[in-house]
Amino acid sequence: MDPTLEMSSSELARAVEPVDPAGSLGARIQARLDALLKPPGSLGRLEELALRIGLAQGRVQPTVVQRAVLIFAGDHGVYAEGVSAYDQTITAELCRAFGAGSGVIGPLSRGVGARLSVVDVGVDADLAGVPGVRDRKVGWGSQNMAIGPAMTVEEVEASIRAGAESVAELGGLDLLAIGEAGIGNTTSAAALTALLTGAPPERVVGRGTGVDDEGLRRKIGVVRGVVDGEGSRVEVSGKAMARLSPIEALARAGGFEFGAMTGAILAAAARRIPVVLDGYATGVAALLATRLTAAAQGYLIAAHRSAEPGHQIVLDELGLEPLLEWEMRLGEGSGAILAIPLAEAACRLLREVPTFEDVGAQRG
Amino acid sequence: MDPTLEMSSSELARAVEPVDPAGSLGARIQARLDALLKPPGSLGRLEELALRIGLAQGRVQPTVVQRAVLIFAGDHGVYAEGVSAYDQTITAELCRAFGAGSGVIGPLSRGVGARLSVVDVGVDADLAGVPGVRDRKVGWGSQNMAIGPAMTVEEVEASIRAGAESVAELGGLDLLAIGEAGIGNTTSAAALTALLTGAPPERVVGRGTGVDDEGLRRKIGVVRGVVDGEGSRVEVSGKAMARLSPIEALARAGGFEFGAMTGAILAAAARRIPVVLDGYATGVAALLATRLTAAAQGYLIAAHRSAEPGHQIVLDELGLEPLLEWEMRLGEGSGAILAIPLAEAACRLLREVPTFEDVGAQRG
Repeated sequence: MDPTLEMSSSELARAVEPVDPAGSLGARIQARLDALLKPPGSLGRLEELALRIGLAQGRVQPTVVQRAVLIFAGDHGVYAEGVSAYDQTITAELCRAFGAGSGVIGPLSRGVGARLSVVDVGVDADLAGVPGVRDRKVGWGSQNMAIGPAMTVEEVEASIRAGAESVAELGGLDLLAIGEAGIGNTTSAAALTALLTGAPPERVVGRGTGVDDEGLRRKIGVVRGVVDGEGSRVEVSGKAMARLSPIEALARAGGFEFGAMTGAILAAAARRIPVVLDGYATGVAALLATRLTAAAQGYLIAAHRSAEPGHQIVLDELGLEPLLEWEMRLGEGSGAILAIPLAEAACRLLREVPTFEDVGAQRG
Repeated sequence: MDPTLEMSSSELARAVEPVDPAGSLGARIQARLDALLKPPGSLGRLEELALRIGLAQGRVQPTVVQRAVLIFAGDHGVYAEGVSAYDQTITAELCRAFGAGSGVIGPLSRGVGARLSVVDVGVDADLAGVPGVRDRKVGWGSQNMAIGPAMTVEEVEASIRAGAESVAELGGLDLLAIGEAGIGNTTSAAALTALLTGAPPERVVGRGTGVDDEGLRRKIGVVRGVVDGEGSRVEVSGKAMARLSPIEALARAGGFEFGAMTGAILAAAARRIPVVLDGYATGVAALLATRLTAAAQGYLIAAHRSAEPGHQIVLDELGLEPLLEWEMRLGEGSGAILAIPLAEAACRLLREVPTFEDVGAQRG
């Protein structure tokens, strides 16, 4: 049986190894990049990307032939607070569309030859038997974080396990892109960011898929309520908010798809599969994963800098510089998928471009 | 016979039509983008790219199935001034490598399914019969611009024609990426930028493929000499430097590949084929093309912002915002090729993503 199946979040975290503890692999990859038929460093960030993928896969000549996109979907009790411009039933509609190879991510996945897998971990609708949608339902939508915890700790662990198992089910894989769908989940992303980084609610809340000014105020209010609640708990329990564990933060303000993405990132990292992040929500899941084990950072690639303001806070915390600055804010893995051909180009650099020595030419 | 063959530069320029003179096509494309199953504008610059490609191709649902990369190669007499860190024979070596599907651009072209065509328009070596290299030689390297004009006006027109014909020979095409190879050609790019924009030599000269401080001073000295020479001519002839025509600028400081790229851009635009630019040198060719006809601008896509400082001046002048900021400075079309899958994703958006109406869902 696959070793990562049935693991708890802490066991999964321990299974992730640092990408290059001795620094020797990085040196070998860099030496090859410098020897290629081009001035050293002249391909800028394409070379950095090649190095990063090589380090994650543990080899000088990485490949991204086997590529997949995993979309986790869940609904959010906080929707009741009026934090989204869209109807909650859209989450299920999106799953049906993705499962049929449609939506935005369906066509884009085909374009880059990536397998698309849609996993229901918490949609508040019956999607059993819907073509192309995997049933890993942990719950029928999270609870409303404005009133109390969004999930129980058991649900958090179950969602992490569902994410990890979804990676295992994909079989051999060179690169994993992750994405999500969940009406209301930028409020969850914002609250988690505030809880994990201490950033003020005003800085982590954005318009998501497009709420108006009133909706924006409601979102900020919800996040402030969550943060203040935890703050008051500090006085009672003596436990500083910043000390909230990733699991506790997920239970307080997460959603099922956040737990699943965190589990997927850890499971991929444990298999030395680099993970392409999409926008704000996937970034928050990556932050949760790195809080469970710092070693996960070396497996992460940030595809783009989202239009959501909180995303920058998350990227800074992760120490990642995104590949694209395209003001995207859709989710669905739509930004992550754009990074796949860029990752392929980076791998071809290390695998197929000759060195000066190969062609018998002198540098100058 | 193809109408653009044998055209002079001014005839070619007149054959380029504005992309959307009435604005009606743009409105139709935007309406479709807004109706797709996603919040309006939520894909940011991917939507802008889709709009741009649609406008260039003159249709609401563009496609980039047929894609090609054209690399024009030439040598530069100014090499004798010590402006490059590399041996001049590298230009020919690169052509041999590209022709064999190698170098950097060979593997990257295969990765995105683009036909690669390498055209010798002015290499100072006999490449006749070299597999994969088209012989369109206009001259054996340009003259040294530090001493006098780099080309005659006849050579400029011949190189523009060679570029236009190279596009015609590709047959049916949805998207053209252009690139170049020519040791010493960033000095040419810098001098042309100074002549066309009036920017001071210090701001348009960079390290190219990697000259040292002394080489950088020599490059600036050469460009200043060219600009000052034209300046003194102003006093004699009363002709302002900024009034130097694109053809005169090419003759003074160009190289054969700059003429060819200018011709290729015009020929593609005349066929409503969008053109993906690479870095500094291709940007300068695009600036020359837009100076020959402003209508060419609508067909241009800037792939990346080069590490060469003068490139930003050129992009500002062209009014283009590049897709990537990757500090690349190789040339060869290596940056342009990365934009092709991004362009494909943009087209799939307009062709394959359903509208809310298609899936029978309500927005909210």
